[in-house]
Amino acid sequence: MQTSARNRFEGTVSAVKPGAVNDEIELTLAGGERLSAVVTHESAVSLGLAVGAEAVALVKAPWIVLVTDAAGYRFSARNQFSGAVIALTRGAVNTVVDVTSGDLVISAVVTNDSVDSLGLAEGVAATAIFKASNVILATRA
Amino acid sequence: MQTSARNRFEGTVSAVKPGAVNDEIELTLAGGERLSAVVTHESAVSLGLAVGAEAVALVKAPWIVLVTDAAGYRFSARNQFSGAVIALTRGAVNTVVDVTSGDLVISAVVTNDSVDSLGLAEGVAATAIFKASNVILATRA
Amino acid sequence: MQTSARNRFEGTVSAVKPGAVNDEIELTLAGGERLSAVVTHESAVSLGLAVGAEAVALVKAPWIVLVTDAAGYRFSARNQFSGAVIALTRGAVNTVVDVTSGDLVISAVVTNDSVDSLGLAEGVAATAIFKASNVILATRA
Repeated sequence: MQTSARNRFEGTVSAVKPGAVNDEIELTLAGGERLSAVVTHESAVSLGLAVGAEAVALVKAPWIVLVTDAAGYRFSARNQFSGAVIALTRGAVNTVVDVTSGDLVISAVVTNDSVDSLGLAEGVAATAIFKASNVILATRA
Repeated sequence: MQTSARNRFEGTVSAVKPGAVNDEIELTLAGGERLSAVVTHESAVSLGLAVGAEAVALVKAPWIVLVTDAAGYRFSARNQFSGAVIALTRGAVNTVVDVTSGDLVISAVVTNDSVDSLGLAEGVAATAIFKASNVILATRA
Repeated sequence: MQTSARNRFEGTVSAVKPGAVNDEIELTLAGGERLSAVVTHESAVSLGLAVGAEAVALVKAPWIVLVTDAAGYRFSARNQFSGAVIALTRGAVNTVVDVTSGDLVISAVVTNDSVDSLGLAEGVAATAIFKASNVILATRA
C-alpha cells in the first residue's frame, strides 16, 4: 500500500464494539500491541472489519502527540506507545520526530517550539499518543 | 467565508443519520460527488443540517492522506477522491500537494518523505482520502 | 505535563453526555469559557471524567482552523474562540499563528497560502475553531 500516512500498523481485528454511527475496532499488532480505531459503522461493514480480519491502520504524523512525562497522567487518547526518540528532521517551523516503541517506529510532526520545550533529542524517552478517531483502517479489496 | 482550511466544498445535505452523540451528514456537491461528515448531534441541530440545507465542508490540508494504489484496497475513511497531482510546494519538512478530482482541487500537507517514497509529481495519479470525523460543516448564520 | 500539543486548557468537567461508543465531555475553563471534547466511553470511565473532575484538554496546532469572518456563519466545530492574532512564525510552507482570546493563547499551524489569503497579521481579528473529536483529555494518574 502506497500512502502518504507516515504510520502504518498491520494487525488483526481482535474486538468490535458497535455504536449507532461509529464502531470502535481493536487491532492486535504482530508484537502483541493493541490499537484502537473509531470508524463509521458503514465503513466497518463495507471493509468486513469482524474479529479475525486482517487490517492496516494508517495514522498521519501530525495527528500524534508526544509526551515526555506520561507516567503521571492518564490520557483519553486510546493509543499510547512508549519508547525513545531515534531521529529528528528539523524544518523552519515543524520537526519530524521518530520514536521507537518495541518493534514499532512512530513518526510525529510537532512544532519546533515543542521540540525545544520538551528537550526532544535522540535517546530521550517519549510516549506517542493518538486518538482512535484519527486512525484510518484499510483492508485488501 | 474566510478560513485557513485549504479545502472547502459547497453542497446540499442529502442524508442525515442520527446517533446519540454524533450524527453523520452526507453532502452532495455541485458535481454530484458525495461527502460525509460526522458532527455532534447538538451541532447538527444548531446548524439546521436537515436534508436540503446548503452547507460548506471545511477540511484542513494536514488531515488528508494521499494514496497512489487505492484500487487494491478499501479504506474506512468515507471520503475518497481520485485524480492527479497538479502542483507541489516543497518546504524543509512538509510539502503541499494539490490533487484535482473532477471539478475539485484538494490540497494535502504531507511529509517530504512521503512525496519521495510515493513518487508524487505533477501528473501522477493519486487518491485523496479523509475521515468524516475530520470535516467541519458551516452554514450561513 | 510535558507534551508536544501546543494548546493546553485546564478546566473542570461541567457536563457529560454519554453515547454507545463516544461520550461528549464539557470542560469549563478558569475564565468561564466552555470547551467540548468527544472521547470514547471507555476513556471517559478510565479517566474518571465525571462532573467536578479536573482535566486538561490538549489540542495540536494543526487541528485548529482560523476564520476571519466567523460572524456570518455557524460552524459544526463545537469549540470557537474569538480574538486577535498576536504572533506569526513563518516557514517555507506553514506558519504558526498565535491568537489571543480572553486569557487564552491559541496556536494554529496553517499554510502560508492561508496567511496570505486571509491577510493574517498582528492585530487582525480571528476566530480559532476546532472539533470536539480532536481534543485529547488528560487527568492526573
